[in-house]
Amino acid sequence: MRSPIVSAVEWSPRGDAIRIIDQTLLPGRCEYLDLETVEAVRDAIMRLAVRGAPALGVTAAMALALAARPCGDLPRHETLQRLRAHADLIRNARPTAVNLGWALDRMLACAGSASGHGKSIADVLLDEANVIIEEDRAMCSAIAQHGLALIPHGARVLTHCNAGALATAGVGTALAPLYLAAESGRRPEVIVGETRPLLQGSRLTAWELARAGIPVTVIADGAVASMMRRGRIDLVLVGADRIAANGDVANKIGTYALAVLARHHGLPLYVAAPSSTIDATLPSGDDIPIEQRGREEVTRGFGPLTVPDSAQVENPAFDVTPAELISAIVSDRGTHRPPYHFGVGAG
Amino acid sequence: MRSPIVSAVEWSPRGDAIRIIDQTLLPGRCEYLDLETVEAVRDAIMRLAVRGAPALGVTAAMALALAARPCGDLPRHETLQRLRAHADLIRNARPTAVNLGWALDRMLACAGSASGHGKSIADVLLDEANVIIEEDRAMCSAIAQHGLALIPHGARVLTHCNAGALATAGVGTALAPLYLAAESGRRPEVIVGETRPLLQGSRLTAWELARAGIPVTVIADGAVASMMRRGRIDLVLVGADRIAANGDVANKIGTYALAVLARHHGLPLYVAAPSSTIDATLPSGDDIPIEQRGREEVTRGFGPLTVPDSAQVENPAFDVTPAELISAIVSDRGTHRPPYHFGVGAG
Repeated sequence: MRSPIVSAVEWSPRGDAIRIIDQTLLPGRCEYLDLETVEAVRDAIMRLAVRGAPALGVTAAMALALAARPCGDLPRHETLQRLRAHADLIRNARPTAVNLGWALDRMLACAGSASGHGKSIADVLLDEANVIIEEDRAMCSAIAQHGLALIPHGARVLTHCNAGALATAGVGTALAPLYLAAESGRRPEVIVGETRPLLQGSRLTAWELARAGIPVTVIADGAVASMMRRGRIDLVLVGADRIAANGDVANKIGTYALAVLARHHGLPLYVAAPSSTIDATLPSGDDIPIEQRGREEVTRGFGPLTVPDSAQVENPAFDVTPAELISAIVSDRGTHRPPYHFGVGAG
Repeated sequence: MRSPIVSAVEWSPRGDAIRIIDQTLLPGRCEYLDLETVEAVRDAIMRLAVRGAPALGVTAAMALALAARPCGDLPRHETLQRLRAHADLIRNARPTAVNLGWALDRMLACAGSASGHGKSIADVLLDEANVIIEEDRAMCSAIAQHGLALIPHGARVLTHCNAGALATAGVGTALAPLYLAAESGRRPEVIVGETRPLLQGSRLTAWELARAGIPVTVIADGAVASMMRRGRIDLVLVGADRIAANGDVANKIGTYALAVLARHHGLPLYVAAPSSTIDATLPSGDDIPIEQRGREEVTRGFGPLTVPDSAQVENPAFDVTPAELISAIVSDRGTHRPPYHFGVGAG
């Protein structure tokens, strides 16, 4: 698998900051931001400058490694206490994606099992963060390999939001098989809904696919159904923010509509996500917390007022697609078909 | 039925211009525009300053009456020739709504059957335009009366785009029964998707409903499905731009998705439209021309660039909902249930 199309999250050249692409500025400008503190990381996560479940996990792990650096002279107990406080600061920045908590817990467990004081804990955490980065890249490549079989030659693939290189440290989750299919000469075409309110489909997915030379067509979210009816879409392929043990999938708001529409039109809907996205402690999607975001994303998404102040607004960031509407779930461990039964560690 | 909530289209006080609300500026500003020429009318229609199938018909009729005014001294033949040229200028400004052509044909037929020269034709056309305005208002009231039975007490009604007072000369089509239900103490609540790309749901429907004191909640178009799944919607009620003889309905892009989603969740979907929207010459919706609009509505809908230049964009303004997904069609002539068979003049 070739190297990442873009690098959404990486160490700064001197290694003293987390360098991200500020995704709020795409596609107009591609600017990098160096995050030097846990507070800056929390802010970047909350305003979606860095987003995507896998990238959030990677960023959280790097943030804890960064937080451990000044603990060099601190005794073990104080170091761990400080790290837990930092983890708490980031943990609730976005409640739906499980990868954030997963990465923080893994880093804290790693710190807890390390011997020695501040400096040695910091060294262990830096190594662990780098392992998580590498795992994320390898996970993307594995999803690409497993998912490739689902992409026929010339397939016209509908995706949603952004589950690409910009959502991971590697080549993406849902977009990974498409990059590999293009590389393999299968000439896939991609259709993506804008993904209101934050337009990750039109701003991010269209940007990274067009940059990689893959034909991409942007449509309003409401235009998906008529595209399906006119036979313009062959399959649907999306990412996931959390997957319950029974295969129910939380993903960007609007995914559930695509699943219902795909079923109505006899099209398969596939979900591609790393095994770290599977939360086997949750029996079903009913238990997945859904983040409600501010009304400004809907009312002033672009500057001018587009909703009168006297109207109410609801802005759930995610919805849950029931497992029975999902034709397959592709993870780094293979392609899972229904009925889904994800046990702990069985992703 | 009470007087219109807002007046989207009316004569200017001196009667020498068509006064419209410039709907491109809502909800931020409510400004009126006086259209004094057929060219100004065409421009206003094309940039959606005035929109909504019934309002387009009314505006077109008023425009021909306006165009006839300077024909006072012209002989009959030249007057009719000039009117036909003016009608051609407006006719293709928007291809999907049938009301535009319907109103123009009616005005031309009226002019053709009038005796005398320019002045007397102009008088007849002014009368006819005023009849069309009054008919439109009466049609809205009739739809309100017929549709009221479909709105239970406390109903939570999903609508789409704007089929309200802003889309007619009266109280609207799909919103008309809701205004009457509110007036009758049934306390309806409305949920409306933004309706990208031009946001008629969030900008216009939310504005006129909130102004009338009806609770309205705006959501991203992609959030409709999860609202249905969570039991937050009781029924769907939308307008129409053209209805084929078999009951297939062309309406704002995204309507077809709502119809599929409503069926999946066991919710009724009703269409409310004037009988002038029924095009009995078309056997099915497959024959309805679908207007494709410019990419800028999607890429720069709010100023900043939200789609990279290297991505393609498709921007169909309408989609077609097959009759089998429509629980009832309410027109000014009553409530029609499937199977639909609209003959010429049988709307």
